[in-house]
Amino acid sequence: MSLRPTLDFLLYDWLGAERLNQRERFADHNRETFDAVLDTCERIAREKFAPFNRLVDTQEPQFDGEKVILPQATHDARLAYAESGMLSAAQDDDIGGMQLPFLVESAANTFFAKASISIGSNLLTTGNANLLMAHGTELQKQVFALNEFNGRFTGTMCLSEPQAGSSLSDVVTRAVPDGDGHETDPLGPRYRLTGNKMWISSGDHELAENIVHLVLAKIPGADGKPVPGVKGISLFIVPKHLVDTDGRLTGERNDVALAGLNHKLGWRGTTNTLLNFGEGKYPVRGGAGAIGYLVGKPGEGLRCMFHMMNEARIAIGMAATMLGYAGYEASLDYAKNRPQGRPMGAAGKDPAQPQVRIIEHADVKRMLLAQKSYSEGALALALYGARLIDEQHTGTPEAADEARLLLEVLTPIIKSWPSEFCLEANSLAIQIHGGYGYTRDFAVEQYWRDNRLNMIHEGTHGIQAMDLLGRKVLMENGRGLQLLAARINATIERAIQVPDLAAHANALGQALQAVGAATKAAWATANPTEALANAVPYMQAFGHTVLAWVWLDVALVAHAAAASPARQGRLAAARYFFHYELPRIGAWLQVVRERDLTCAELPDDAF
Amino acid sequence: MSLRPTLDFLLYDWLGAERLNQRERFADHNRETFDAVLDTCERIAREKFAPFNRLVDTQEPQFDGEKVILPQATHDARLAYAESGMLSAAQDDDIGGMQLPFLVESAANTFFAKASISIGSNLLTTGNANLLMAHGTELQKQVFALNEFNGRFTGTMCLSEPQAGSSLSDVVTRAVPDGDGHETDPLGPRYRLTGNKMWISSGDHELAENIVHLVLAKIPGADGKPVPGVKGISLFIVPKHLVDTDGRLTGERNDVALAGLNHKLGWRGTTNTLLNFGEGKYPVRGGAGAIGYLVGKPGEGLRCMFHMMNEARIAIGMAATMLGYAGYEASLDYAKNRPQGRPMGAAGKDPAQPQVRIIEHADVKRMLLAQKSYSEGALALALYGARLIDEQHTGTPEAADEARLLLEVLTPIIKSWPSEFCLEANSLAIQIHGGYGYTRDFAVEQYWRDNRLNMIHEGTHGIQAMDLLGRKVLMENGRGLQLLAARINATIERAIQVPDLAAHANALGQALQAVGAATKAAWATANPTEALANAVPYMQAFGHTVLAWVWLDVALVAHAAAASPARQGRLAAARYFFHYELPRIGAWLQVVRERDLTCAELPDDAF
Repeated sequence: MSLRPTLDFLLYDWLGAERLNQRERFADHNRETFDAVLDTCERIAREKFAPFNRLVDTQEPQFDGEKVILPQATHDARLAYAESGMLSAAQDDDIGGMQLPFLVESAANTFFAKASISIGSNLLTTGNANLLMAHGTELQKQVFALNEFNGRFTGTMCLSEPQAGSSLSDVVTRAVPDGDGHETDPLGPRYRLTGNKMWISSGDHELAENIVHLVLAKIPGADGKPVPGVKGISLFIVPKHLVDTDGRLTGERNDVALAGLNHKLGWRGTTNTLLNFGEGKYPVRGGAGAIGYLVGKPGEGLRCMFHMMNEARIAIGMAATMLGYAGYEASLDYAKNRPQGRPMGAAGKDPAQPQVRIIEHADVKRMLLAQKSYSEGALALALYGARLIDEQHTGTPEAADEARLLLEVLTPIIKSWPSEFCLEANSLAIQIHGGYGYTRDFAVEQYWRDNRLNMIHEGTHGIQAMDLLGRKVLMENGRGLQLLAARINATIERAIQVPDLAAHANALGQALQAVGAATKAAWATANPTEALANAVPYMQAFGHTVLAWVWLDVALVAHAAAASPARQGRLAAARYFFHYELPRIGAWLQVVRERDLTCAELPDDAF
Repeated sequence: MSLRPTLDFLLYDWLGAERLNQRERFADHNRETFDAVLDTCERIAREKFAPFNRLVDTQEPQFDGEKVILPQATHDARLAYAESGMLSAAQDDDIGGMQLPFLVESAANTFFAKASISIGSNLLTTGNANLLMAHGTELQKQVFALNEFNGRFTGTMCLSEPQAGSSLSDVVTRAVPDGDGHETDPLGPRYRLTGNKMWISSGDHELAENIVHLVLAKIPGADGKPVPGVKGISLFIVPKHLVDTDGRLTGERNDVALAGLNHKLGWRGTTNTLLNFGEGKYPVRGGAGAIGYLVGKPGEGLRCMFHMMNEARIAIGMAATMLGYAGYEASLDYAKNRPQGRPMGAAGKDPAQPQVRIIEHADVKRMLLAQKSYSEGALALALYGARLIDEQHTGTPEAADEARLLLEVLTPIIKSWPSEFCLEANSLAIQIHGGYGYTRDFAVEQYWRDNRLNMIHEGTHGIQAMDLLGRKVLMENGRGLQLLAARINATIERAIQVPDLAAHANALGQALQAVGAATKAAWATANPTEALANAVPYMQAFGHTVLAWVWLDVALVAHAAAASPARQGRLAAARYFFHYELPRIGAWLQVVRERDLTCAELPDDAF
């Protein structure tokens, strides 16, 4: 089925989005206002994004030495998005926002992600501005964040450097005080930055008046040397064009130069850049270095940046999910229309009979149901995560704290699980298309290429796994894991009462126990080298268990509904997940439990 | 380690290739002659193939309306291959061949597949000629096959049509007798063909003097209608340019017209075409239709074609394997040179210490060892298959028959397993490269794109799985499966004596029992709809069991060798396979055993 009924079911029937208007912040909203946002986004995505998804793949960003050239469609899509108000959907009314629940904002953004993941990089702009709202000064909010929300400026996050990708403690971009009075600049303590930043998405373009770079850099200590490790990292606003305290461009180009565009496997609608800060290409105000304004306190850069990074990780999970969903829709459509072959058994023996549509073949159904269970399951999880953010912002202190901690534990799963399994879904979408799927005449090969990025950016799979097993399940004495287990057990207790779901409930109970036991066994020797040697298989098993829980919880609501094809589909997708997917955790957990060091101990020269 | 020592180990230490010269057919060969072939191919691949692999990806085949334009490098690579004599490596001395064992020919061809899978389509030419050697008349061999072996002509296989891909019984290309005396044409009964053929690799180009198309078409019955089903299919030689009985071009262009080039996700060095036969673009000898010469008897076309198709399936497995291997080599090299991050534990806490190379991280080692176990395991299996072909051709009647039957059972695995798991290996190679792996500046993204084809062409994954569970494990009363089980048990019996390998042997014994039980359970109701509903999971489990056997057998030989890094690596790859991979079969077999119809029974409208 198409996306909208699935969203409606998850939002309203499963997550009770309507009830959010009982919260003071959302009191002006109701299902009608939510639906109006969804309608608008669905329409803009259909008109301004989807028709140009292939175009932005074939017309990659070009750099003429001075400016980045993007297709007109990219400009139009960004403008339509900005004009919809979605950039500030979650912001307060009084700064022009809609005060929309993050849950509904997330749901509305799925349409764009499905239509063309790479045309927009609006989520970066929103995330950048949200960081400033949390950590910036009043004037920084006014000048930078608000102009991102209203669409005048766009935003980036500049963390990686060519020699420091996953290892942020090794960034060498330097920030030195910009002369006398630097501390009293109204826009924030003023520094001069020098260094190179790699993998910067939307790092240069002409889509908006200005680009607000949020840059990690090190302020040299008293000895003139950068402080080693992450403690030395500070955060700076480095605008492409300098602005005054009213947010007006002063006409001075800051010394941020595009050193090169990365030529990627996919996701080509978005520029991805190497940026040189302060190399002297655009000397500014007679000094050396790009001008930047400190955000927060020196040395707290990474902590501030995590505000944006966590948001980006959830957004990446949603991106991967919607690419998976797009492939599911495309291959479902193909399977319903492509005649090929005949049914098995006697009925299929007569070659004089016409061919059947491929959706009538069991293996095609298997590939479709796998995609449905991956992408709809991931979508449910991502929306659940979004609902936790609303709880964090508007719940009772206790509920908010629980939501925060649950989200800490779930974030690596929300990011990594769709990156891996919705990529697999895209591969199945190609497979259903047969040879046609391998051609560029069909959309599915692009979804697969686009989706391959998601296991890499915003923290690789390996980094997410270390975060999960090395930090998240341990933090606050394991309270996050306990909270999650309690929610899973609550679902199990309800499902066990429903005869159709009792077997699933039992299976989930066993899976949860197995994950818990593996967590303990991994850390039994309290040796991180042993515990984390199989962090990725652990994360895969943890993720599958979380998804099984989500499916069981969704199935409870579906089961209670009146008979319909949609109900039947949801229950079948849940059953698929329990029969075909959840049993996979056995193999993953075995190596975790045994602290298997087959890989970790192998010396270089034996490969 | 690089490919050559691995090949040497598998060929000589594991498969005893040297002993093949005890067979009369190979009596003139010895390790020196084998090594000379390997040396030559390694050099040609290094000089003429590898440097141009990216070039053929970016400079796709172009059609100017009359001719297909390919990069000069493609011409040079083909010429070098033809001049090496590899096209006729396995043929008799007296027709200019080398009388080389297929095992050694396969090993030598790995260098080309690894260097650039898509520059050459030499395997199609060899396969085409081999089919004619088996089913053609003396003159057909002389005129067509021999000129393929000597490099003058190239070959294709024309099976699919736009409306008939996997379903060959639905081909509608027609072949009608070409007037009086058509039966007595010295080149074979002469027909006129009309129809469209889709997905024809190397279907048009200027790489050679002529192209020999082998075309499936239907001869109308007495009622003027084509015979329905596969029984009506016959096989024809349709040369692009007509030839005389001496193989000289007569100057007449046959009516085979390029209707379009397919624009693919990868594998772009090879043209892939839609061909129109007999549409009238090149009217020939005053009649309508393309001129074709019958091969074998009418109605036996598919049986003849399977000679080529089985060979192509093994070649595709090897292609997938070598793409996996290429990614493994590239990512191993990257991991040994890229500094990033610090070790876990106390030693890694000091940010003032230099970063370590990423091969020192456990998860990178895991991704490398997975690739090694996939690609070297698949290589071992493919070479084992090649050795079976030699046995079939030169063994005692009993051994030859066993080899034939074993190969029947193993062919779907040799084709499908590397297609799936060496593609996964390529994804891991990208992952090890991080962001760089997602750019086109590194080779690994191309390997991944190229490899995605292999689950589709020459029979999709689903088709292979139906062939395995629906036909191969049942044929001759299950004798093929019994033969395979006997060989696996023989390996188990030897390994159980070796304390280091006994646990693997036990695990393999259990896996074999589980596969046997699932095979029986699948067919317990004798209902193909139920038995085959989970044919793909069955094939995955079957394949993993076969690979575990191959690794255990390889490990036996490695274990007996003197200590060396290579020995350590092989034993670790085997251990990896037993600890991380073999346990996966549990989830796959469960749905087979239970004849799970969750997918098969879901109606269209519930998706």
